[in-house]
Amino acid sequence: MLDQKLLPHKVQVVKMTTHHQVAEAIRDMTVRGAPAIGVAAAYGMLLASNNREDLEAATKELKGTRPTAFDLFFAVDHMKAKIAAGIDPIRAADDYADTIVERCRRIGEHGERLIKDGDRIMTHCNAGALATVDWGTALAPIREAWRKGKEIFVYVSETRPRLQGMKLTAFELMNEGIPHAIIPDGASGHFMREGVDLIIVGADRIAANGDFANKIGTYEKAVLAKELGVPFYTAAPLSTFDLSIERGEDIPIEYRGEEEVTMIDGVRIAPIGSRALNPGFDVTPSKYLSGIITENGVLDPKDIRESLKGARL
Amino acid sequence: MLDQKLLPHKVQVVKMTTHHQVAEAIRDMTVRGAPAIGVAAAYGMLLASNNREDLEAATKELKGTRPTAFDLFFAVDHMKAKIAAGIDPIRAADDYADTIVERCRRIGEHGERLIKDGDRIMTHCNAGALATVDWGTALAPIREAWRKGKEIFVYVSETRPRLQGMKLTAFELMNEGIPHAIIPDGASGHFMREGVDLIIVGADRIAANGDFANKIGTYEKAVLAKELGVPFYTAAPLSTFDLSIERGEDIPIEYRGEEEVTMIDGVRIAPIGSRALNPGFDVTPSKYLSGIITENGVLDPKDIRESLKGARL
Repeated sequence: MLDQKLLPHKVQVVKMTTHHQVAEAIRDMTVRGAPAIGVAAAYGMLLASNNREDLEAATKELKGTRPTAFDLFFAVDHMKAKIAAGIDPIRAADDYADTIVERCRRIGEHGERLIKDGDRIMTHCNAGALATVDWGTALAPIREAWRKGKEIFVYVSETRPRLQGMKLTAFELMNEGIPHAIIPDGASGHFMREGVDLIIVGADRIAANGDFANKIGTYEKAVLAKELGVPFYTAAPLSTFDLSIERGEDIPIEYRGEEEVTMIDGVRIAPIGSRALNPGFDVTPSKYLSGIITENGVLDPKDIRESLKGARL
Repeated sequence: MLDQKLLPHKVQVVKMTTHHQVAEAIRDMTVRGAPAIGVAAAYGMLLASNNREDLEAATKELKGTRPTAFDLFFAVDHMKAKIAAGIDPIRAADDYADTIVERCRRIGEHGERLIKDGDRIMTHCNAGALATVDWGTALAPIREAWRKGKEIFVYVSETRPRLQGMKLTAFELMNEGIPHAIIPDGASGHFMREGVDLIIVGADRIAANGDFANKIGTYEKAVLAKELGVPFYTAAPLSTFDLSIERGEDIPIEYRGEEEVTMIDGVRIAPIGSRALNPGFDVTPSKYLSGIITENGVLDPKDIRESLKGARL
């Protein structure tokens, strides 16, 4: 897999031969983004199976890497079921990856219709191809609108502490030639007041009532969007929906190490002795959502259970 | 003056002998914070006078350094008037500095009454002693509450791009032993939802209708505070009020170099080719304010002209 920790300045592929290595890559964010974590975990299960490891132990190890993104749990259970059913694990993992890519492509098609020519769009963190194998979730509609010739401009909030907006989303937009500017997270409200037409973010887990967890900073944008009347969407494949969880309050939020905040590139910035708090995600109540862009269309968050009846999750 | 660019890891005093050096120090943020910029500019005028420079040119040079903070203009005009009236410029500059310190002390007294034992307080950027010579504006009530024995906890938003919250506010709180944690700017909403009792920020310029400019990221906190019912105050001496400006829209907002966002410690983080937008300040409409903490008490933002009638500005 691509080592996302080294982007945008170094493109390096790392080879893995055990599910332990995959688990570590998920934990240390060599791979990140809910759908991409799911695909990595699927291949982790393939490696465990090929290496004749105990699949129960592998399941536990992979699921124990990060607590918030639902695709991780979804993909591991999916692979376990396929392997138990006697399906070739290589085919099962490839199928899983292909399905995610196809789902994202369709998210792009559905979401593109929300974007008008000339729109200024804001996004947060990275919900692009790097987060999803290809296309992206939040970036898929943006990519599709640009390919269709719509003149758009994207505000990329840098996304402290790990700067996935600045490092990854800007990198993807640069590579496609899509006009954009990086802004400090705290400047999002300022630019929304100046004029943003649409906000699209990704999701790490969506509860049955439409509340969703996403990268820390998402909730703030949602509140500002409501205050200023800016449409606010999340985009995610159905593998991100966790219908076993009723409300956002029940989504476990990962706290990461405080050194992600207090140190930059190995150098301590904060005063010695000062502590930091580093929640990786926040929860946005569904009342702030204009809609959820999925491969099955744009869902009304009030109506998730009904919309997903019979859908292939 | 103390070189604030080197804090918190290096405490270094730089000596200046010309107003040109003072102007450069204001421009490159060796000194920052509206009241401290005002005091630096007052001493800049003293140096210009002692060095027998043209005072009109010095006025223009000092006022041209940064556009948003009002204390700069206030202090330069104040010194020009004193010198023109034949008052010893050393005494005038010292008086100006002493007055700012005394004003901040009184801001602490008035603001302290808003803080209850056990309160969790959020602040942004640095509005402490480093921004004001002593006491601070937003930090003065916090300091005073702590000295009076109130058990408080302070959330310090790190304040990208230049991290004055992490580097300066945390440094001041550490030195006083006040319990605190640094958080990424985008986590402010998350922690407000978890429970913040009070938000106090500084101000760089306050218009007659109570709208005010402050460090980028302030407006977002104000909107979140309103949404969540958290009292939201700004604290500033009367030298920060610009009654010649009716509304926030009329306050000039400084855009700073994009390398403050795209580079950290001289290392480029953003992809080559990606641009950044770096507004130094945003404007918060007065409707979000619970009150303005000044040396004359806590003002109702709807009533500024009336409250300041006859006040010594």
